[in-house]
Amino acid sequence: MPEIPPPLTTMPPAHQADLLITGRWLLPTSRQRDAIAGGGVAVRGDRIIAMGRADELAARYPDARRLHEEHGLIMPGLVNTHTHAAMACFRGLADDLPLMTWLEDHIFPAEARLSPDIVYQSTLLSLAEMIKSGTTSFCDMYLFAGEVARAAHQSGMRAWIGEVLYDFPSPNYGELENGFAYVADLFRQYQDHPLITITADPHGVYTCSPDLLLRLGAMATEHNCPYVIHLSENAAEVTLCRERHGCTPVEHLERLGLLNPRTLAVHCVVVDDREIGILAAHGVKVAHCPESNMKLASGPAPVAGLLRAGVTLGLGTDGSASNNDVDMFGEMNSAAKLHKLITMNPTVMDAETTLHMATLGGASCLQADSDIGSLTVGKKADIIVLDLNQPHLTPLYNIPSHLVYAARGADVIHSIINGRLVMRHRQLLTLDEGAILTRMEEIGRTILTSRNH
Amino acid sequence: MPEIPPPLTTMPPAHQADLLITGRWLLPTSRQRDAIAGGGVAVRGDRIIAMGRADELAARYPDARRLHEEHGLIMPGLVNTHTHAAMACFRGLADDLPLMTWLEDHIFPAEARLSPDIVYQSTLLSLAEMIKSGTTSFCDMYLFAGEVARAAHQSGMRAWIGEVLYDFPSPNYGELENGFAYVADLFRQYQDHPLITITADPHGVYTCSPDLLLRLGAMATEHNCPYVIHLSENAAEVTLCRERHGCTPVEHLERLGLLNPRTLAVHCVVVDDREIGILAAHGVKVAHCPESNMKLASGPAPVAGLLRAGVTLGLGTDGSASNNDVDMFGEMNSAAKLHKLITMNPTVMDAETTLHMATLGGASCLQADSDIGSLTVGKKADIIVLDLNQPHLTPLYNIPSHLVYAARGADVIHSIINGRLVMRHRQLLTLDEGAILTRMEEIGRTILTSRNH
Repeated sequence: MPEIPPPLTTMPPAHQADLLITGRWLLPTSRQRDAIAGGGVAVRGDRIIAMGRADELAARYPDARRLHEEHGLIMPGLVNTHTHAAMACFRGLADDLPLMTWLEDHIFPAEARLSPDIVYQSTLLSLAEMIKSGTTSFCDMYLFAGEVARAAHQSGMRAWIGEVLYDFPSPNYGELENGFAYVADLFRQYQDHPLITITADPHGVYTCSPDLLLRLGAMATEHNCPYVIHLSENAAEVTLCRERHGCTPVEHLERLGLLNPRTLAVHCVVVDDREIGILAAHGVKVAHCPESNMKLASGPAPVAGLLRAGVTLGLGTDGSASNNDVDMFGEMNSAAKLHKLITMNPTVMDAETTLHMATLGGASCLQADSDIGSLTVGKKADIIVLDLNQPHLTPLYNIPSHLVYAARGADVIHSIINGRLVMRHRQLLTLDEGAILTRMEEIGRTILTSRNH
Repeated sequence: MPEIPPPLTTMPPAHQADLLITGRWLLPTSRQRDAIAGGGVAVRGDRIIAMGRADELAARYPDARRLHEEHGLIMPGLVNTHTHAAMACFRGLADDLPLMTWLEDHIFPAEARLSPDIVYQSTLLSLAEMIKSGTTSFCDMYLFAGEVARAAHQSGMRAWIGEVLYDFPSPNYGELENGFAYVADLFRQYQDHPLITITADPHGVYTCSPDLLLRLGAMATEHNCPYVIHLSENAAEVTLCRERHGCTPVEHLERLGLLNPRTLAVHCVVVDDREIGILAAHGVKVAHCPESNMKLASGPAPVAGLLRAGVTLGLGTDGSASNNDVDMFGEMNSAAKLHKLITMNPTVMDAETTLHMATLGGASCLQADSDIGSLTVGKKADIIVLDLNQPHLTPLYNIPSHLVYAARGADVIHSIINGRLVMRHRQLLTLDEGAILTRMEEIGRTILTSRNH
């Protein structure tokens, strides 16, 4: 495990703050009624120690370092509940194809040639993109997860990371038995990391035997961590599961005793009302990935029904091979509009509901809502600042509306994760953006060359 | 009419260029196979006079002013075929509401208090947003169209502008008869403007009598200009038309003899295959506004069917009260993904088809495809340059894929319209962005105050 860096600032005496972040508006939650004009946040170490009007905070903490943005909107960092960050290296390599052609002729052959270095570099690229578009936490499932974690550690991002297991040999660990050992090793390496949590990640019910599903379930129980699985992403998966197990993917996991509040079910596109009831009854969380579901023509997840049933939902971008970005602002915009259209009801997925899904809802999906997802005294300082002084954000009547329907990742100018400034005036402070881009261009040329041979 | 400013540069002797725009890639069309590495464009006056490799152009035109962007992608400016630009002042004022509540309780009362100055200022705001997100042409329908034209003239944007007419008194011209006079006057004022074309704009078949529809049709014929009309936007409109006229909106216009290649039908959400056949047979153009159709829960337009029938399609953002932006990059992304989902076919609306719709398709909708929509020697110089050196655009395998699925309006760094540089390094050169934002904040406060009284 890489060495954990020391905190950036020495812990000051009590009643002191390290950093005061102030601006035009503070939106601590997803609700417009909670907005504070001229508000700010005081941070000590990794936590929020005070919130309120900027002038009052400045008087209370005169010695704190100031980050004041005249036209800034201060808000919680976004939580991306489903990524394959390293797939950034495949962005735009193959689009607009039937699912099986895309997977079998393009993605699987490319993945077979993955190396630890490509995964590490490509994850760095996604981390740069995520920080520059307002994400402060992400939940990643991929191959060579140790490299994903190494990159996340370097970036200072908060991360939930799992090595994906399935019945077939993996480009990373080879035979499945090695996979369990690899995951167990990750748990050991990162057990005390302040920002990285290891998760248990079976790929899906159509690619994992019941034994695999159960063994990872036991690891999730042992470590009390999220159990992340693609579930009912499309009709083909459900058909296959019915043929093999005589039931739907949701029923299959229920029969195996694998539905519980740690389960993070990704997609849930093809689930009926009865299955929604099952997910709700077991406290299962759902990572909704609207843009991936649209681009792959998987279908629209029944989000309005899931919300009515009280299921906790987060938003996810999925990988850049099927989205093709990791911009959570774009994902909010798509999510809100998609479900209005699908239900033919413009009141569905209002701006506050959508913003909640991208913040506190996502945090709840990761069992982290007591630490992140909103700005509250005592919570971790995961904070972003947007520049409101732009044509597409003027005038401003309702902040959640602007965030969901008009704002873009590029509007984020500062980012603080765990009390640490990781981006200032759009300059990344923990990553060397120029070096990452140069290296990724080389990797892109290699991928293209090897594909053409 | 405002005085037309003199050309920025004196016309040089033949075989000279005023401006050479060069970069990493030149994409003159929507097709990846047309891309030229290290390509560039030479401009003289308002037109493209040469295209090719940067080094060859530099050798041929050694005295031309250079605009070189090492990581730049040079491409045609985007064409937004449906806007209500001045509605930027209502962005976020009311969202997530049933259509009639939104219109009758929020938009109509707010519009009743519009003034020429609010329309002028709000159009300037949209123009700033459009230029900053890569649009170089737009087709606008609204009230106080003379103010819209005044703002467009000031910005240097290419514009198709119409005063919307309907059977009811208008906040602008009052009684309908004055409306025809107002439109006639606009035609006179702008008949020789190099960038602004006046259009004939009946609001819709449910708000306009057959007589109104026909009189504007005659004006469109007389001036050989686009006849822009909202058509079959939602089920309620079709029901109303059936009750009133015993036929669908498409049939109604056909019976009145108002379907022809000048007709730009906006939305066409509720049209069946027979009506698609009618639109195709008459050479009617369609402005497709996916984000507005989604947000208002109007439904998905049958774009795959329209394409199959050979109907010319452009993309439009609609107004910022129902989108809530005028960013054509976002619109491309939504359009491509929406129709894959609706048809459950990931090959529908591939990146090149979608990019074509936002460029040459849009130009064709406005009968301007011989002048704009692609970069060709002899065409007008409407050119944008994007910065490719960013995490979300790296690596680069396929340019149309990146433009549709990953790029954002904020990636556009330079914009040239009609040979004139209107934005350089994201600084607007024809508009005072700071002054516009300040004025719009005041207007926003006024709108909010008057609504609350």
